[in-house]
Formats: sequence, C-alpha cells, structure tokens
Amino acid sequence: MPLPLNPAFAATDPPPVMEARRWIEGVRFPADRPLINVSQAAPVDSPPLALRQALAEAALHDPQAHLYGPVLGLPALREEIAAQWSAAYGGAVTPDQVAITQGCNQAFCTVLATLAGPGDEVILPTPWYFNHKMWLDMAGVRTVPLDTGPTLIPSADAAAALITDRTRAIVLVSPNNPGGVEYPAETLAAFRDLARARGLALIVDETYRDFDSRSAAPHDLFAAPGWPETLIQLYSFSKAYRLTGHRVGAIVASAARLAEAEKFLDTVAICPSQLGQIGALWGMRNLRQWVAGERDEILARRAAMVAGFAALPGWKLLGCGAYFAYVEHPFDIPSDQLCKRLVTEASLLMLPGTMFQPEGSPAGQRQIRIAFANVDVAGIAEVIRRLAAFRP
Amino acid sequence: MPLPLNPAFAATDPPPVMEARRWIEGVRFPADRPLINVSQAAPVDSPPLALRQALAEAALHDPQAHLYGPVLGLPALREEIAAQWSAAYGGAVTPDQVAITQGCNQAFCTVLATLAGPGDEVILPTPWYFNHKMWLDMAGVRTVPLDTGPTLIPSADAAAALITDRTRAIVLVSPNNPGGVEYPAETLAAFRDLARARGLALIVDETYRDFDSRSAAPHDLFAAPGWPETLIQLYSFSKAYRLTGHRVGAIVASAARLAEAEKFLDTVAICPSQLGQIGALWGMRNLRQWVAGERDEILARRAAMVAGFAALPGWKLLGCGAYFAYVEHPFDIPSDQLCKRLVTEASLLMLPGTMFQPEGSPAGQRQIRIAFANVDVAGIAEVIRRLAAFRP
Repeated sequence: MPLPLNPAFAATDPPPVMEARRWIEGVRFPADRPLINVSQAAPVDSPPLALRQALAEAALHDPQAHLYGPVLGLPALREEIAAQWSAAYGGAVTPDQVAITQGCNQAFCTVLATLAGPGDEVILPTPWYFNHKMWLDMAGVRTVPLDTGPTLIPSADAAAALITDRTRAIVLVSPNNPGGVEYPAETLAAFRDLARARGLALIVDETYRDFDSRSAAPHDLFAAPGWPETLIQLYSFSKAYRLTGHRVGAIVASAARLAEAEKFLDTVAICPSQLGQIGALWGMRNLRQWVAGERDEILARRAAMVAGFAALPGWKLLGCGAYFAYVEHPFDIPSDQLCKRLVTEASLLMLPGTMFQPEGSPAGQRQIRIAFANVDVAGIAEVIRRLAAFRP
Repeated sequence: MPLPLNPAFAATDPPPVMEARRWIEGVRFPADRPLINVSQAAPVDSPPLALRQALAEAALHDPQAHLYGPVLGLPALREEIAAQWSAAYGGAVTPDQVAITQGCNQAFCTVLATLAGPGDEVILPTPWYFNHKMWLDMAGVRTVPLDTGPTLIPSADAAAALITDRTRAIVLVSPNNPGGVEYPAETLAAFRDLARARGLALIVDETYRDFDSRSAAPHDLFAAPGWPETLIQLYSFSKAYRLTGHRVGAIVASAARLAEAEKFLDTVAICPSQLGQIGALWGMRNLRQWVAGERDEILARRAAMVAGFAALPGWKLLGCGAYFAYVEHPFDIPSDQLCKRLVTEASLLMLPGTMFQPEGSPAGQRQIRIAFANVDVAGIAEVIRRLAAFRP
C-alpha cells in the first residue's frame, strides 16, 4: 500500500531550476563553445574578504553564533534594517516591524501562510516567480494570474476586476523576477490604494532592490503613516552581500502580522542562521560602498543586454533590469523546446517562459528568461553572438 | 479594515517557550537564589574549538560555503549519514534516502506537508512536542491525541482504535520530548506493523538519539528491507554537536518521499545553511568520541534527577531521559499557575504540562517538564532542594 500523499503536492510541479539542470547533465560542450549558464540568478563569487573574516571571527569567538537566537531574528539586525529603511524610503519603520527569515523564499511562505488558507485566492502578475506559485499550490491557495501584457507592468485596474470575496493578497515583485522591469512608483501606489480599499494585503518583494537603476527611493509606500495596515515588504540578503548559502531574508510588516509570522517561523525554522545574520549585519554596516560598485557593474551588464538585443533581429527585449532580461524569441518553436535546443546547439542554458506562466499560456511559449547577472560584458556579447547565429 | 488572517493561525497558540520567557521578564532574582532556567533543551556552550576552527576555515577559504547548495543538502553529508546510519541501525540506508533541512522542526513540517492536508488526521501521543501540534494546527490538519497514561509509552493497540479514513500518519518521538522516556524497540516495531497494515506513515523523531541510555541500536526498523514503505525518520544536529544556531536537521525516508519534500524545501528554504552542513559533516567525521563523553555527562545528570526525585516527597518522576524529566507535582494547583509561582518563589523556570497536553486535559494540570540537560549535577541538587522547600 503506498503511503499517503497530500493531493496538493501531487498537483504541484517540481522546481523548474532542477528540471533545467537535468538538460545539461551528460552534455559535452565543445571546447571552443563552453556552456554559458544564465538559468539562475545568484552570485557565484564569495563575499568580500572582510565579510568572510567577520564570519570566521564570529565562528571562532562569538558563543552566540552557535546558539538559538530569537525567532524573529537578531535585535541588532532588525534595528539596522529599521534605521536604514526609514532613511532610504523616507518613512518610519521600527525594529518590531522587521523579522528575519531563512531567506526571502521563507519570508514569502511565512507571510502567505498567515494570510491565506485552502480555497483562498492570491493575485500574482504573470510572468510570475515559480516558487511563489509552488507555495500557493502546496497550500491549496488558488493563484489568480494577472496578465501584464507586453509592458510586463501590472495594472491596478485590471487587478481590481479579479478580486473576489476569497482574495487575500496581491503580490508584486520589483525589480521583477523574471521580468526584469522596475515598477513605477505610481504603479505601486495604485496597488496600495486598491489593496487598502479592498482590505487586502499588498506584498512587495524587493529582493533585487539594491540593483534598481533608479538612484532615489523606488516608491513612497513607507512614507504613508498607515503603511503597516496594507503593506508587507520582503527582502533578501543573498544578492547584495553574496550570502546565498547562508539563507537570510526579511519581512517588513506590522508588529501584529509578525506575531502571527512568529508562530510559523518558530515551527518551521526556530531561528535564522546566527552566522548568516551576523554576516548580513556586518554587510549592512560596512559594505554600502562596495554594494554601490556591484550595482554599477550590474547596470553596465544591463546596458550591454539592452544594446545587444537592440541589434538582434526578431528578438524583443520585454524587460531588462536587476538580474534579469525577459525576452520574446522570433521562432515558431515552443520556448521549452527552444531552450533545450539552445543547450545542445548554442551551449546556452536559459529558462523558458513556460516556467513562469500559467499552464497552456501562449505567451509563455514565446518567452525566455535570461539571468545575466553572472555574465560580464564580454560574456553577454558572446550570448548575443550565439543567439544571432542560431538557426531553428 | 484589518488585513486578512488565515483562520488556522487565529486557532494556533503562540509558541509556549516565548510565553514562559515573559514570566521571567522584569523579575529580580535574589543574589543567593539566582534563576535556574530548565525551560528549554538546548546546549548553552559553544561547539568544540576544532569544530569552530573548521567553520572559520570554510568561511574564509571555501567558496561553496557562501553559495546555494542542492535543495536536499550536501551530497557528502547525505552520504555520511547513510553510511553511519546503516552501520548504527544494522540496516541499509542510501544517500538518496537522506535529505538535509534547516533544523529538525523543518524536517517535521516538510514531511507532514507532503503527507497531510486540511481535514486529514495525524495521531500524536500525549504529552506532545508543541511545535508538532502548532504545525498541524496551522496546516488545518486535525491532531488526534493518543493518551500514553502514567508510563508515557504509547500503545499501538490504543492507536489502532483511533485510525479513521482521514488518518495519514502516526508521530513518535524517542527519546521523548517532553516525556524523557525511551521507547522500547518492541513498541516501535508494533507501531511499524500497525502503520504498514493501515497504509500510514510512521514518523519517528530521533532528535535525542545521541543521548539514549541504551548502547545498542534503539530499534531495528531500518533492518527490515521494506522500511522506506512505512518509516520516516527525523534527526537533528543541534544537540550532539551544539549547532543549534546553525539549523541543521535531516529526514531519512524513501527517495520518492524526498522528491515531494524537495518541492517544499525548494520553496521554504532553497537549501540548508552551507556552513551549518559543513559543521555537521565535520562533527560526524571527527567528534564521535567527544559526543560519547557528552552522553556520559547527560546520563550522569539523568541519574542525579532520578535519585533526587526518589527522595522528593509527593513528586513523581514519570519519565527521565535524554534532555528531559517529566514529572507529576503533588499540589492542588494547576501546573501553569504553579510554574509561575516557582519563578518568583523558587527562581525556577519550568514548562507546565498544560503546554504539552490537549486543552483542558486534567493530566496537564499535574505535570511539569524539566529540561535538565544544561544543569550540572550540583545544579540538579539545588533544583531538588528548592522543590523540597517549596510550600504552596
């Protein structure tokens, strides 16, 4: 007799990044055309030496580094986020409105668990981030796709038409994964007004905020005194400080919401990695200038992508920013088949739009995500050359 | 308009350890009677220097320590567990039957999520581990309590009478938290037979296995070739290697079950802390003798608890082993009120049985958990003295 399986799991797709990884298993790439892997957005280099030294020092000499910490995170890190956020967004964020999680994916799951149960609905603009969809599927929450059209910018008016009495939240990711677009401040304000009027949570995932091309605050949502009544922001320390392997993220929300989040986090995590938090705090206090340099480099790569695609016949760059370009290809081949062929015929690993769109969506068949952050300007030129040379 | 709240969260109690922590906030303990905190079971000292050095070395020089790793954990750690488990339990465990999680609580949530959804039922012997109950509450799964009576050892026959067509799993914790009892091998075998016959998962949480007083394998469940069809084992690296703050646990189960677990873990964790896994692996390879010494010390403390309670009029030691004693107090005072009074009148922080029993259970009113692992033999004598001197 087979063991029971939660039917929601049977209906949940496996993680697409792993499926894509299988496409390159056993493939021998020509010596003069090695694999360029633009399937995943994650730093591939170590954090700066001084941060690694801070981690090593804590591992050796700070007893707290090895003990349980508070469920909602190290007080000093919560205070640092509150202070830096208040300054950066021109608003008021207090330490009790900040919780630390084991990465930003966990921040999303935690917040969603407190908001929505089986049969409830959550609005996700498409293309979406697949782990968001997977959590909702596993939790039995219905994902309501919000089509963003060719601009990839969602419309609050279009979202309003999708709200039912089971809707609990709207999720926005800006800068967007996979779309690469930076949502205008007015778009975020319009969604905030909609969410507030309808009693919904507005979740804004700002994992890639440190690479936003705009130098000023990307929105003024925190400047409104009543923000905790509507807004829940998610953040990740993985990208800016190259701490992916340490799993540190954050939730910024009302203290009351975090008291509910605490139940989930106590049960799923007990506490975030103490060393990871120590590294994140050290980074926030010491690496501001270094992160600015990282951002400059990402913006240079983004410019190379924009210039490259402008000269690539038939291909359309739908969005490009932070770590991602989201493109429309010119061929009469479904994107998942095309991406498999690009592995063997161009030594390029990219994720097809089908992984970011509802099943059967025609848009997904034409789209591809290119996570270009790990490829330097010369490498991006090579990606463009290979795409230009590809014949279907 | 208040934001939505998942009704399952409204029905979930907050973590009891934090409630107990509030009892000592602002209390000034007399200089000659400082607080003895036996509310939580966690190492308070750092890992051995050599393990800390291994962590520091990896932080400085191992680039993998800062990058994403595989969702199911470092292959070398999975291999080490498979090899050591196969030897220790006299069975066959392969690396693809091992997954690493961000702590053992997460191992539990992951496994349960794959097994049971809203409306399903899971059998938990009482007294239970409160985080297990909290996860089931948040997931909308009905917890079916299995009374273990004064022995604290559950009966498979009694469990059989509780099975319905919604039952998905039976959860056993041995050595038990909070009960302190070590389940006999025959008890575990009887539950395995029951679970197998009824198509249920048998989940055995062995977080405290390294402190079992029995020197041989505590059960032979892994020795049966068909074990993956029924058994799911959970483990924690927090206790044996003092790695609580690094959050590393494990699931041992069929590869098919782990493929479902991978969906959950990719979404909630992406991967466990790489440094934590490096530390756990180093510990498994190098600290066997050291852990044996730690176990000897815990067994000495256990003996002090047993001797102390034997001489304490009116108190009954229901179970004592690993990190916990579970006791019955002699007073006509509900245990939660008694525990609050013990804070101010005896400078002792213990958790009342009400936190481990279903609401309204008369048994919980008479019971107290004492997490004695952090108190040395002299400290245990002082705990006994204070309890003996307490007058209600």
